[in-house]
Amino acid sequence: MVTVAKLAQLLSGKIISGDKDTVITSISGLKEAQAGDITFLSNTKYLPFLATTRASAVLVGESFIKELPHLRVDLILITVANPDLAFIKVAEYFKPDTVRPKKGVDKKAVIGKKVKLGKNVAIQPFVVIEDGASIGDNTVIYPNVYIGQGSTLGQNCILYPNVVIREKTVIGRNVIIHSGTVIGSDGFGYVVVGGDPAAYGGVKGVRHKIPQLGTVVIEDDVEIGANVAIDRARFDKTIIRRGTKIDNLVHIAHNVEIGENSVLVAQVGIAGSAKIGKNVILAGQSGVDGHIRVGDNAVVTAKSGVMKDVPPGAMVSGFPARPHTEQLREQATLRKLSKTNK
Amino acid sequence: MVTVAKLAQLLSGKIISGDKDTVITSISGLKEAQAGDITFLSNTKYLPFLATTRASAVLVGESFIKELPHLRVDLILITVANPDLAFIKVAEYFKPDTVRPKKGVDKKAVIGKKVKLGKNVAIQPFVVIEDGASIGDNTVIYPNVYIGQGSTLGQNCILYPNVVIREKTVIGRNVIIHSGTVIGSDGFGYVVVGGDPAAYGGVKGVRHKIPQLGTVVIEDDVEIGANVAIDRARFDKTIIRRGTKIDNLVHIAHNVEIGENSVLVAQVGIAGSAKIGKNVILAGQSGVDGHIRVGDNAVVTAKSGVMKDVPPGAMVSGFPARPHTEQLREQATLRKLSKTNK
Amino acid sequence: MVTVAKLAQLLSGKIISGDKDTVITSISGLKEAQAGDITFLSNTKYLPFLATTRASAVLVGESFIKELPHLRVDLILITVANPDLAFIKVAEYFKPDTVRPKKGVDKKAVIGKKVKLGKNVAIQPFVVIEDGASIGDNTVIYPNVYIGQGSTLGQNCILYPNVVIREKTVIGRNVIIHSGTVIGSDGFGYVVVGGDPAAYGGVKGVRHKIPQLGTVVIEDDVEIGANVAIDRARFDKTIIRRGTKIDNLVHIAHNVEIGENSVLVAQVGIAGSAKIGKNVILAGQSGVDGHIRVGDNAVVTAKSGVMKDVPPGAMVSGFPARPHTEQLREQATLRKLSKTNK
Repeated sequence: MVTVAKLAQLLSGKIISGDKDTVITSISGLKEAQAGDITFLSNTKYLPFLATTRASAVLVGESFIKELPHLRVDLILITVANPDLAFIKVAEYFKPDTVRPKKGVDKKAVIGKKVKLGKNVAIQPFVVIEDGASIGDNTVIYPNVYIGQGSTLGQNCILYPNVVIREKTVIGRNVIIHSGTVIGSDGFGYVVVGGDPAAYGGVKGVRHKIPQLGTVVIEDDVEIGANVAIDRARFDKTIIRRGTKIDNLVHIAHNVEIGENSVLVAQVGIAGSAKIGKNVILAGQSGVDGHIRVGDNAVVTAKSGVMKDVPPGAMVSGFPARPHTEQLREQATLRKLSKTNK
Repeated sequence: MVTVAKLAQLLSGKIISGDKDTVITSISGLKEAQAGDITFLSNTKYLPFLATTRASAVLVGESFIKELPHLRVDLILITVANPDLAFIKVAEYFKPDTVRPKKGVDKKAVIGKKVKLGKNVAIQPFVVIEDGASIGDNTVIYPNVYIGQGSTLGQNCILYPNVVIREKTVIGRNVIIHSGTVIGSDGFGYVVVGGDPAAYGGVKGVRHKIPQLGTVVIEDDVEIGANVAIDRARFDKTIIRRGTKIDNLVHIAHNVEIGENSVLVAQVGIAGSAKIGKNVILAGQSGVDGHIRVGDNAVVTAKSGVMKDVPPGAMVSGFPARPHTEQLREQATLRKLSKTNK
Repeated sequence: MVTVAKLAQLLSGKIISGDKDTVITSISGLKEAQAGDITFLSNTKYLPFLATTRASAVLVGESFIKELPHLRVDLILITVANPDLAFIKVAEYFKPDTVRPKKGVDKKAVIGKKVKLGKNVAIQPFVVIEDGASIGDNTVIYPNVYIGQGSTLGQNCILYPNVVIREKTVIGRNVIIHSGTVIGSDGFGYVVVGGDPAAYGGVKGVRHKIPQLGTVVIEDDVEIGANVAIDRARFDKTIIRRGTKIDNLVHIAHNVEIGENSVLVAQVGIAGSAKIGKNVILAGQSGVDGHIRVGDNAVVTAKSGVMKDVPPGAMVSGFPARPHTEQLREQATLRKLSKTNK
């Protein structure tokens, strides 16, 4: 519970209508909001909702002021520089206490030898941290998480229940890893003996496992969804660079490198040694073949399969992925031919 | 072990051939069955197998009687109204004791404060149930499961090993959740700051996490496969309605709503805020884009990608998904043109 | 640390240049290698790298000798019959001690009644092994793994953290299972009551769960990646035959059978009762429909969907999967028509 006046102060915002002493009790979306809620409006196309929302207060962008409709006397409007960011601050303010985990090392956790634990860590029951691992300040490790030998986690990380971090993994600061995710599983690599080396992939023959002796590096500010798998490198490193966000059920093979601030939507798969640039978007269920390079700022649309290099800034789609406009034209052509062919 | 006479009584069935005192020791499929087994026949196209099955007894539909072949004197036939359902009853009867878990709360489980445990629950080793959670009567929780703060489970649920239920999740009665599945992981939502807002998805810029403060509601009679991920809503609820069945490795994003009695086959992905109707089938590896509506009784065929709303009862396929007949015609057209073009 | 002379002896190799008393301290790839490293060259197309590598020693195939460039005096070359296999031996030699888990049964593991434990097993904290299970000699079970009632594991297996093996599963020797993988979850099978049986999949109606009473058999020398799901059979067995390798996030439904030495790349999905031959390659994100047969030595390319039987040795692609050359021709036709149509 907080007054509108205090919220405006917290957000460096300006109250342009309504009663500054109104008490806000919760946050919500523009459509779902009820009395007592604060909500936000970050796109002018939603301005009409201001006439009907049941929220008590709304955060709006300073730049929207000219476009604001006739104001309702019962609705509090607070202008801020960036309503999205302001809303995140409010959301953090209202985040329920229930999800703040207990600090300290639970007696039912198993901590190996020569483990370094930072200040203010929360290590919960049935966690196993193997010898030589290092956990940064304020990092929270939920139950049933496994941290392998010599792995390091930076400050302010959150590992949700049942995450597995295999040995020698290096994880930066402010990294969030959701439940069921596995970091550092062995890369998928075999030597085929007795087969036909000319055949695709060496079809026949017996496969001997190539030891996967490298590691995984996850840089600062990365978030990784639930039930993701990121394999360790054969030698060297699989790398996820700073600020990249990875959704649920994504597969990242050995020796892959993903640049800064990229986005991998759910169920994406990236084969071995592919290099993804920065600010790249790989939409849901898309895939990238091994050893491919996807340039900075490129977009791969949903369900596409990238089989050759993608230049920086390109948008590709289909299988095999080709320029998006080309793929659309092919689809239109086929649709037209199919109709005339009936 | 049970006599045919007793089974027939259990199933309200009628023995139309064979010795009612024969002892049945196990159940099996029509083709795999051995002496001592009971099996079932639910489709008249399999009638010829009655001549060769090694089973001792077969359940058949009452309506099949006219079509039955010349009866073998050594084969016991029991007619029932619905052979599938009758067979499920027999299967439950023969379900091995080995899979009935120990009742009670294991000493190696960690139970938080103000947790409500129903009658006859089974809480196994290394389970963590956080403060304020509630577990209904007869519910079974296998090892290494995590139940977050304030989450509630109804009666007669089964949570297999290594399931994660995050905080504030609401789960109904008779819900089965298979191993490795995560319910209530954070939705994949960010505010992009400093990027180009006109670019697809806001390609450039730094992503700030939007707190995901909503929850997940799973209604009665839902079954969820292994290694599924269902995200919590940003606000409000992600909802899976009564009777829906979800296969392995499915992704369900934040704020999705799935109607009653729908079927999501393995590796399906549903993006944020999509609304799926009731009695819908999403076949394997298909995907649905964000904010899309799929109408009641619709079918999305395997590997399709739904990019616009699907009317009730429609069958769509391909990418982007279009009416199934249209997609088939396009395929036929291309095949024809490709041949003449050779 | 080991001398080149000793390594050559270990590998039955021949030192053809350089100082046999040089000490090797680590292994690496040809490009990443530093002084003190040994690396290998298994394909003549990489011969030019011999002029620039910083490695101290390189393993090369005996058959490459004629093609070798002018030798550098500072580079040690060892010829071997198979440089890939030789390199695996060296890699095993250098495998860091840190990943060798502690032997014995940890006090924090829970071992049921009538469990058979072989010699030299490693059972780590928070493992649960249910009644009647059997673990072979030298098998390693990492933390938070669950082994269901009556399941058996052969010798020399490795189960990484958070693996779930449900009841009655049979696993052979030298099987490696990566974290988060679930073996023996229930198959996805329901009887639809009150629906329209003529509709695709029986769209409407309420689904009753068919008990899944079969099991899963994993033969010797199989490796299974992270977060895979393999369902138990309805009756009978889901079978993965000897030497098959399965990548991350793969789905294998009930009653599937996969032949020897096949390869399932990441995110492949196989529907119920499909039979995959031996030496088959299913490339990434491909799928196989239920009850389909894929013949020995067949290849299914990435993202393809197999909807009808594939003959032995065929390469198929697209959706629905058809002969690869046919699919390429259709793509080329469409591209051409689309250009002339502009």
